[in-house]
Amino acid sequence: MNTSAGASFTDLYQLTMLQAYFDAGMEETAVFEFFVRNLPPQRGFLVAAGLEQVLEYLENLRFTAEELQWIADSGRFSTEFVDYLAGFRFTGDVHAMPEGTVFFTNEPAVRVTAPIPQAQLVESRLINLLHLQTMIASKAVRSVLAAPGKLLVDFGMRRAHGAEAALLAARASYIAGFGGTATVPGAMQFGIPLYGTMAHSFILAHDSETEAFENFARSQPDNVTLLIDTYDTEAAAHKVVELAPRLNARGIAIRAVRLDSGDLAGHARKVRAILDAGGLHSVRIFSSGNLDEYRLRDLLAAGAPIDGFGVGTHLDTSSDAPFLDCVYKLQEYAGRPRRKRSEGKATWPGRKQVYRRYDADGRMVQDVLSLEDDPQDGVALLEPVMRAGARLQPPARLDELRARTAAQLQSLPPHLRQLGTEPPYPVVIAPAVQELASLVDEQCR
Amino acid sequence: MNTSAGASFTDLYQLTMLQAYFDAGMEETAVFEFFVRNLPPQRGFLVAAGLEQVLEYLENLRFTAEELQWIADSGRFSTEFVDYLAGFRFTGDVHAMPEGTVFFTNEPAVRVTAPIPQAQLVESRLINLLHLQTMIASKAVRSVLAAPGKLLVDFGMRRAHGAEAALLAARASYIAGFGGTATVPGAMQFGIPLYGTMAHSFILAHDSETEAFENFARSQPDNVTLLIDTYDTEAAAHKVVELAPRLNARGIAIRAVRLDSGDLAGHARKVRAILDAGGLHSVRIFSSGNLDEYRLRDLLAAGAPIDGFGVGTHLDTSSDAPFLDCVYKLQEYAGRPRRKRSEGKATWPGRKQVYRRYDADGRMVQDVLSLEDDPQDGVALLEPVMRAGARLQPPARLDELRARTAAQLQSLPPHLRQLGTEPPYPVVIAPAVQELASLVDEQCR
Repeated sequence: MNTSAGASFTDLYQLTMLQAYFDAGMEETAVFEFFVRNLPPQRGFLVAAGLEQVLEYLENLRFTAEELQWIADSGRFSTEFVDYLAGFRFTGDVHAMPEGTVFFTNEPAVRVTAPIPQAQLVESRLINLLHLQTMIASKAVRSVLAAPGKLLVDFGMRRAHGAEAALLAARASYIAGFGGTATVPGAMQFGIPLYGTMAHSFILAHDSETEAFENFARSQPDNVTLLIDTYDTEAAAHKVVELAPRLNARGIAIRAVRLDSGDLAGHARKVRAILDAGGLHSVRIFSSGNLDEYRLRDLLAAGAPIDGFGVGTHLDTSSDAPFLDCVYKLQEYAGRPRRKRSEGKATWPGRKQVYRRYDADGRMVQDVLSLEDDPQDGVALLEPVMRAGARLQPPARLDELRARTAAQLQSLPPHLRQLGTEPPYPVVIAPAVQELASLVDEQCR
Repeated sequence: MNTSAGASFTDLYQLTMLQAYFDAGMEETAVFEFFVRNLPPQRGFLVAAGLEQVLEYLENLRFTAEELQWIADSGRFSTEFVDYLAGFRFTGDVHAMPEGTVFFTNEPAVRVTAPIPQAQLVESRLINLLHLQTMIASKAVRSVLAAPGKLLVDFGMRRAHGAEAALLAARASYIAGFGGTATVPGAMQFGIPLYGTMAHSFILAHDSETEAFENFARSQPDNVTLLIDTYDTEAAAHKVVELAPRLNARGIAIRAVRLDSGDLAGHARKVRAILDAGGLHSVRIFSSGNLDEYRLRDLLAAGAPIDGFGVGTHLDTSSDAPFLDCVYKLQEYAGRPRRKRSEGKATWPGRKQVYRRYDADGRMVQDVLSLEDDPQDGVALLEPVMRAGARLQPPARLDELRARTAAQLQSLPPHLRQLGTEPPYPVVIAPAVQELASLVDEQCR
């Protein structure tokens, strides 16, 4: 299995359209915008992410010799077209909201301006990349908001949808404010802090729990988090208390215990009491097992003495909203605004910009969706990030993106910070956009 | 971004456990089984898929020089351990249900028998691969059952969770009985039939719909499916009728029209009437747009004259069940059965086999979960597929896997074929398994 995702990683219809554009000599400038039509019912806002991987994809876009051969052999395309694809590059411009920016329906998070074959071909992969990380970042911030100040770790690799989803979920959740990931390539490729110690199988492979704890502690003396729910959680906590002095004599400190099943709040309270009675006040309690933002909120509301959480499946699959209604639509071609009018799926035409207005306390109060040449009060959210196929800035550092996300969360209206969805945040469609839509409808039949 | 997923594509805890096994000299044989603890509420059965990618992964498992360097530089592991990883290979045995096999809770779909470090390390990626394709195949068969005889095409790449999810969703849905995919690498890598013609942007980029239709038809004369919902569906159908003779004069036949929005059943009826009145009886109607098995069933129940369906987002994300409660658990180590007893997550110990019983008509009636050395009546579902790290058979052909899936669906109890979930299919736990569990509980504290 070849998991590289280059120029041929697309839907067939992009290639058949490109053949038709090629045959008709259509290569004028197109403007496409990526936006979300409707929010999932459980989301009051979204967090833009994935731009870095899009820019990397666009910069490196080319068909390999193997891909060209396959396209030629498919019998679907002309020889001249295949020759043309051999020299195919992305030479366009990109405007985008920086990763970590909060955004809402109808607001373009990315705008691509390029000769139509280029802007068209990239649709499938561009959506694929932006959708995944935006979905995950938008899910991850909910745990961040539900458990302020707690260590949150991405545990989701195994049930993420494939390798790339796991890798990019680690990245998106870190941008969103998670403290790290269990996914090794997340550290190898992005420098994300790594967390992980032992599974139940490690305990089960030993003849006794205490032996398993001790073997692990001697092997990983700087990383001692002991999993204590394999047989009986409280009994295991007592074993930890008994073991601690022996390890201490060797200079090894137990850092934490992990709970992974049962009534987590109840176990955490009992385990905290056992640890404290044994003098292990500094040993933290870490918890995992089917967690999401709702369970985090409930556990903390119940006063559970838990210091950190591993959030896995529900994060990496965005289980309550496993997709976004996001699209990438042609808004202008050859200098003329364009507009799809399909029932329930009509779009706003033209090159657009989003302006965000704040109150005196720095809280977001309203966005305005406007045309690029019709500036409004407020902060413009879309910035130029690529010109003529070349990036305008080096890749953003993840710590900068984390800081931006944190600042954006800070400026959210209180009910959105509390994971509410009503009332919806106001996004005003500027009069010029509405007028342009009417004009396009009259002209284009 | 490096999207290859080799030995280091794992959770950190696999590596820390391996260091501890290494330090303790633990390398005896372990038996792990992959199974599903609970079905999602919307699923009455699952379809095993992903084994081929697991075997490929196991056969090629090794740490690259770059990975070893990263592991060494991380400061978490001993030099001796890193040297040991340099020679690390998978030398174990694998038993598995062939892809396309229907299975249920508690039934091991894959069993790995190997020295514990090997069987342990592969956990994260093995689950990741089996989970994704099993989830997608189990979703895809629902559309196959809901729309018998109809052409079904995977349209989900853009909102699949990353590139690998898109690629493997194309494979899993094809195994499940879909007719093809829109995802180009699905054809390049797996030979899956490809479908695709045009998007709305193609229509919008032209000054008129008819011009767009005509340009496309001339460019792709053997692949003329026209998208007719960009402005007004019925008006576009009339344009198709007008265009047909002009194309016919050039030897080009319109194969189909595609509807992508609005009341699909209503539009399909009107469009069918317009096409028929225009003599275009052979032009098929293909439909897409937010489809899943429930909408397919409703459309067909309403008598909508639709000949084929593009199923996208809901398929590729398995939107109503975006994860399975699947695990990979240690069942035996060093010749002794093992059993986790965590609350709500206890497992059945020992090396197990699944026996399936059929009635005289070839319908499945009951499965028995037994120990490998305690054979039962019925057909044994787990087969040896890898020995000492080498495959026992060449990779299965996708058409064989499709045929197996189709036969399995045929043998399902009627209520499961109709997408019902009650009563649950009976999986009997053999007495010897239950006795072994009690025995393990007594021995292991």
